[in-house]
Amino acid sequence: MAQVARVDEHLAEIQRAATRIHGHVRRTPLLRSDIAAGLMVKPESLQVTGSFKARGAFNAVLSLVEREPGIAGVVTHSSGNHGQALAYAARAAGLPATIVVPEGVTPAKIAGIRSFGGKVVTDGVTYDNREEIAEAIAISEGLRLIHPYDDWDVIHGAGTSGLEISEDSRPGAVVVPIGGGGQISGIALALAVLSPETSLIGVEPAAADDAARSLRTGILQTLPSDPKTLAEGVKSKSVGLRNFEVIVGDGLVRDIVTVSEDELEDAVRVAWTRLKLAIEPTAALALAAYLNGRVPSGSEEHPTVLILSGGNFDPATVAALLSS
Amino acid sequence: MAQVARVDEHLAEIQRAATRIHGHVRRTPLLRSDIAAGLMVKPESLQVTGSFKARGAFNAVLSLVEREPGIAGVVTHSSGNHGQALAYAARAAGLPATIVVPEGVTPAKIAGIRSFGGKVVTDGVTYDNREEIAEAIAISEGLRLIHPYDDWDVIHGAGTSGLEISEDSRPGAVVVPIGGGGQISGIALALAVLSPETSLIGVEPAAADDAARSLRTGILQTLPSDPKTLAEGVKSKSVGLRNFEVIVGDGLVRDIVTVSEDELEDAVRVAWTRLKLAIEPTAALALAAYLNGRVPSGSEEHPTVLILSGGNFDPATVAALLSS
Repeated sequence: MAQVARVDEHLAEIQRAATRIHGHVRRTPLLRSDIAAGLMVKPESLQVTGSFKARGAFNAVLSLVEREPGIAGVVTHSSGNHGQALAYAARAAGLPATIVVPEGVTPAKIAGIRSFGGKVVTDGVTYDNREEIAEAIAISEGLRLIHPYDDWDVIHGAGTSGLEISEDSRPGAVVVPIGGGGQISGIALALAVLSPETSLIGVEPAAADDAARSLRTGILQTLPSDPKTLAEGVKSKSVGLRNFEVIVGDGLVRDIVTVSEDELEDAVRVAWTRLKLAIEPTAALALAAYLNGRVPSGSEEHPTVLILSGGNFDPATVAALLSS
Repeated sequence: MAQVARVDEHLAEIQRAATRIHGHVRRTPLLRSDIAAGLMVKPESLQVTGSFKARGAFNAVLSLVEREPGIAGVVTHSSGNHGQALAYAARAAGLPATIVVPEGVTPAKIAGIRSFGGKVVTDGVTYDNREEIAEAIAISEGLRLIHPYDDWDVIHGAGTSGLEISEDSRPGAVVVPIGGGGQISGIALALAVLSPETSLIGVEPAAADDAARSLRTGILQTLPSDPKTLAEGVKSKSVGLRNFEVIVGDGLVRDIVTVSEDELEDAVRVAWTRLKLAIEPTAALALAAYLNGRVPSGSEEHPTVLILSGGNFDPATVAALLSS
């Protein structure tokens, strides 16, 4: 899609995305808990394929089929939730999907992609060359590369959760994990017009604070090396260019806060034992920020809404956290 | 409350209960998952205090305050979800609550009851004499005993989840764990009139199959000894008399099936990893029955609805299950 400059045009695209993906994804509930009256959570862990990524993947695949009905298939570079969601959405649309995965990724992730019908390519793939290899495959096999976050269709799909939030609540704040920035930029574009009084706040692990530094400096910052964090869903070295444009350029994100690894571990335990939701560690980032007073505490009428981004956890990791 | 004989009078009581407890409890969502299109779950784990017991506890306490405004307080014998829910509901109504708990119960459970403002009595209490001791305290201190399941107010409160199911779906079957039978008898009375085409099915651990035998023989059966099961929420030695009347006497439960301990352990893992819900083992009983083909598989239009009764799990137990 050509870049749409104005926020209300983006909103119209998000509304079209919601219609397009309706019936393929779920409307996730907005839940209260016993933690505090001013807190609500939106568990995207309950979304199709177990993460919010299904929204963007379906919008990208279905938009592609509308624009280029003869397209041979799609390709991406993501061993995580986007890879699974794209494989799933492509299969639903009758398209083949190739997922480029670095050698050494856990067999469970590869099995996950294959269970959704995706073709996995690993030979000679590293974290550094995977994007390049995906682009080469796209060209040689006539596939369309669907970037995990730096793609307007993906951003508009992710923004559909923002529409749902604005229909279900009048939040004082919405708190969203940031990796590549796809989810928060979509939600930002949805809420900018529909709920302008809502403060949008991003959360990163302190070990992967590139977006926080980008917002503070106004210049796109990049992590020097692969960050060590339990939040493996937000390890991207920087946000995408389109995401930077929305988050920093358009000024649609109020603040980006960080949490420590200890705070994140505690938040995972709280999510499981008190929210009663089996989320993945990355999805506990917003809860960690909330529990440590880094975001507004909210009120019953204008709650703080935390996006719990996914539920595809490694059982052994979570078992270790629960028994410690 | 005097015993109400006819099913439609019970329904009216359940509807009054819904109005009475509104604002104190939550309307839990009815969720789909990636497991199967014909499956829906109602996670009472997301209910106030982490289990469906809050519905009955609030209805009992608020009904009591309406009928006997000068009552000194409430008492019960339950170290589990009913004890916590009653302590919580009593505090909300400004009444003291005494919870009679056998010596040797885990400190976490006692701490849970105290965190909701309940007074815990343990001296000389065993599993066998706890009901007697609670009755003695009720008489000597002028408190009202709120039985965990053999009480019409508790049953009508539990039935409010049946109202919600009938508003949200047209299920082919609803599957409910059975301990004392409070939850299934409430839901049975709600669905009998509102959704007569729905088959109501109970589930027990094979090691605690008293209700299944009661339904088969038409005579109230009792377990010979304390059953060994991971499903600690359904260890009652028999269903209550009022519960028996509804389940067997009124013929409102189509079938009661049993699951093995291995099947239950597997179901807990599936609940956490595929439903993405952090439920307690007892709450996985209906899922175990579903996964092993003991209840109808359901259709998208007429799904099988599983009641996930609570989320107050022991972290060490679940950690062991997840890492095995």
